[in-house]
Amino acid sequence: VSQSVELSAILAKMHERTRRLGGWGFEGETVEPSPRMLDWLRSNVGAPGPAVRDNSFPVTLPEPRPLPRLPIAVETTARDRLLHARGQGLIDIIRLRSRTVPAVPDVVVDPVSGLAVFGPGTTGPEVEAALAERGFTLGHFPQSWELATVGGWAATRSSGQESLGYGRIEDLVAGMEIVAPAARWRLHTQPASAAGPDLHRLIMGSEGRLGVITEVTVRARPKPETTAVQAFLAPDLERGLEAVRTLTLSPLPLSMLRLSDAPETAVAMAIGLADSPFAGLARNYLRLRGIGDEACLMLVGASGSGRTVRTALRGAASVLSRVRAVSLGRGPGRHWLRDRFRHPYLREALLDLGWATDTLETAVPWSRAVECRAAVRRALETALESDGERAAVLCHISHPYVDGTSLYFTFFFRTADDPDATIERWARLKRAASDALVSVGATITHHHGIGSWHAPWLETEIGEAGIALVGDAARTMDPEGLINPHVLLDPTDRLRE
Amino acid sequence: VSQSVELSAILAKMHERTRRLGGWGFEGETVEPSPRMLDWLRSNVGAPGPAVRDNSFPVTLPEPRPLPRLPIAVETTARDRLLHARGQGLIDIIRLRSRTVPAVPDVVVDPVSGLAVFGPGTTGPEVEAALAERGFTLGHFPQSWELATVGGWAATRSSGQESLGYGRIEDLVAGMEIVAPAARWRLHTQPASAAGPDLHRLIMGSEGRLGVITEVTVRARPKPETTAVQAFLAPDLERGLEAVRTLTLSPLPLSMLRLSDAPETAVAMAIGLADSPFAGLARNYLRLRGIGDEACLMLVGASGSGRTVRTALRGAASVLSRVRAVSLGRGPGRHWLRDRFRHPYLREALLDLGWATDTLETAVPWSRAVECRAAVRRALETALESDGERAAVLCHISHPYVDGTSLYFTFFFRTADDPDATIERWARLKRAASDALVSVGATITHHHGIGSWHAPWLETEIGEAGIALVGDAARTMDPEGLINPHVLLDPTDRLRE
Repeated sequence: VSQSVELSAILAKMHERTRRLGGWGFEGETVEPSPRMLDWLRSNVGAPGPAVRDNSFPVTLPEPRPLPRLPIAVETTARDRLLHARGQGLIDIIRLRSRTVPAVPDVVVDPVSGLAVFGPGTTGPEVEAALAERGFTLGHFPQSWELATVGGWAATRSSGQESLGYGRIEDLVAGMEIVAPAARWRLHTQPASAAGPDLHRLIMGSEGRLGVITEVTVRARPKPETTAVQAFLAPDLERGLEAVRTLTLSPLPLSMLRLSDAPETAVAMAIGLADSPFAGLARNYLRLRGIGDEACLMLVGASGSGRTVRTALRGAASVLSRVRAVSLGRGPGRHWLRDRFRHPYLREALLDLGWATDTLETAVPWSRAVECRAAVRRALETALESDGERAAVLCHISHPYVDGTSLYFTFFFRTADDPDATIERWARLKRAASDALVSVGATITHHHGIGSWHAPWLETEIGEAGIALVGDAARTMDPEGLINPHVLLDPTDRLRE
Repeated sequence: VSQSVELSAILAKMHERTRRLGGWGFEGETVEPSPRMLDWLRSNVGAPGPAVRDNSFPVTLPEPRPLPRLPIAVETTARDRLLHARGQGLIDIIRLRSRTVPAVPDVVVDPVSGLAVFGPGTTGPEVEAALAERGFTLGHFPQSWELATVGGWAATRSSGQESLGYGRIEDLVAGMEIVAPAARWRLHTQPASAAGPDLHRLIMGSEGRLGVITEVTVRARPKPETTAVQAFLAPDLERGLEAVRTLTLSPLPLSMLRLSDAPETAVAMAIGLADSPFAGLARNYLRLRGIGDEACLMLVGASGSGRTVRTALRGAASVLSRVRAVSLGRGPGRHWLRDRFRHPYLREALLDLGWATDTLETAVPWSRAVECRAAVRRALETALESDGERAAVLCHISHPYVDGTSLYFTFFFRTADDPDATIERWARLKRAASDALVSVGATITHHHGIGSWHAPWLETEIGEAGIALVGDAARTMDPEGLINPHVLLDPTDRLRE
């Protein structure tokens, strides 16, 4: 499967298809749960609640408040205001369906330095297509890659699935321009500097509070000849974690490491999430008698020349054999690469049936990874107990670092009698998980960002001084508090709205 | 040569020796220029000027200004105030000789996550000794490693000689505590996060303006079995640069790449900087008839298991053979590793003779590296022309990145009739070079920091908005402007002092 063929197919589809009103992705694109998935949900969460249907309704917006003179053109039509009023979270989807305008790519590549300049609304496929024409790649592939934009990645400190090899967006952004009521500000493009604090890092993660990102210069790399992902089964989570840590510290040029816990492995392999890449592996799995119920699926990726990829995966296999992991070959990895941006569609198919699902994520030092996973699982599993409701929780590692790792949780619960009551269930789950993260000293978010849901937990994480410093910066750039005023620094608990 | 033997020798020396009053390093430690070096200086700069001698003199300090209540203990003795009044720059040395107090290591290592907590005054050798006991290394080796401290590295965005493998200090710091008049602030230790902007990066590079760093948590890695450096001669700068860029983009696990321009290569190899590691190579060099006067010396380093190092250096040799570079083997690299922290001593031996030498450094995208080198050389070579004085300029690359590289310049000039006139010469050279950097869009500093000399050029680099944001932060943490008030944000041109 050549990546460039996939890419042009994605782009062709993007341009012939319509972004969905009130849902993930494109009109007509769905991911339906498999019969086994439905059985698993019935056993682990309970019979479905009421379906959450797409009830579009006419809305009347209040007049826009008078705006000061801004140094860029702005849109104040009802349609544009509505389209940008919500994100793509579970609650956004339940509350309001939204559509977004197509982005316009705006790219210049300097082939020696590998620097490319993009307009902020350029989507992942558009970025890769523009770079591929000149033999480059950005290598930034978050799950939302088909829809997300380079400006959004920078504003929220995004991390792609191959961050191990290419780095997080903070590593990939070399320069930016932002526009705020008080300034139009171009940050220099430099490979590195010691000229005071790195102010690019103050903009990245500011979620629009310091201004609107109007241009992003990224560091592209030569497009690899090939990308391959090999699957393994580690005997248990502890040995899987040890292998991931060893591989992260090794000099092997890996681009991705992913380790599912035993429940997620069981769902992915034995049950089949929708048209999961792993469904077909059930038989193989059952045949592998040496690996028991605690087995953890691991995906190991490498990008580069055929020889680099072979060497990297052979080296990884050798490390993994020391923890008695068993190779499942490259078949599951090919399926995963093909389907890796499609999973979010499942959420809406489940809402139609009466189950809700959402994800949350964090990062912790290696020494607290097991404790953190246990604390979040316990919090989610018990949060709805008083209602006699259960939540099912899956977990995986997808972004390992020298000193620690991300943990990514997927949870499932039954919808309640009406959308507000479903949201209230979700809020209890979210609060319980967030409190659990804070209690073990884990970050409230590894790559989803703060937005408004996580804002009440931010001060615990960055301290009173941190809140004061980011607040100062926001006031200097936007003295009247006009840009994105309710994200990041507004500590209102919007789970109570 | 085992690194642990070197380390214990350095530590033993540190504790038995006295930090020099008014000079680099330790009492009794000197690096004398070789006869060939003196000949080269006579030809390229001119006969020496008057020697700049160490004229210690009694000083009377004014009473300290009344301090507000600070959340930590402070020292206000005359000796402590004097000892911290100056840095180790050429002008600091000319103006005033200083001594510093021994640092106290304060270390805790968590062996799973590789996190180690140090007091800010812990020096490079103390950091490595504490980590080595547990089988770890930080891998941060700036030229000032023997004297510099972990708090200083973080405050100034330091970069070590093996930054290609280990990263800059920004990558190595996982957590910090700072104390300022307005707050005692602990920044969480996390492998990665998207919880708002990365405020660690606001502290790093703030040069004390936002508070005193009182604790640093670093990311250590398992100590490599071995470190090796292989030397090559590239036929010219253009092909040397191409090779460095190709190697930086390659998956080879290299820890260091260094490329000298032709003048620096000639000095290092044919002339011998003091007891230079390369002096002995002159004969080999002359024998290599295939390589002409444009030859550029390249050092390629790798750290890890014996096998990793062999594979990395073999891969590098293969890339280098494509640009017709010639290997000089590992001998010069062994000398370089042994002597890499000794070069600054040469500065004072030359002052005693009547020549002054200093360094400056920058970073630029690859596409502007050649232009930037030419502009800075031209600026330095012509700055003293109206006096009938010449400056000699050497240049090397020591920190390559995906999108660009550092450029490190060493320049030599004759001392003038008195120290003030020598400083005035230096100021003209420094201004000319700084203006040249700004004119080609290069950063004013890649790893030396802003301090006071570079402060007049900071606004051009980070913009009015950047100055305003860092100023806001300084005012919030230190409302009365008590901490390090004259660095970073004070645009006074201290070259005119």
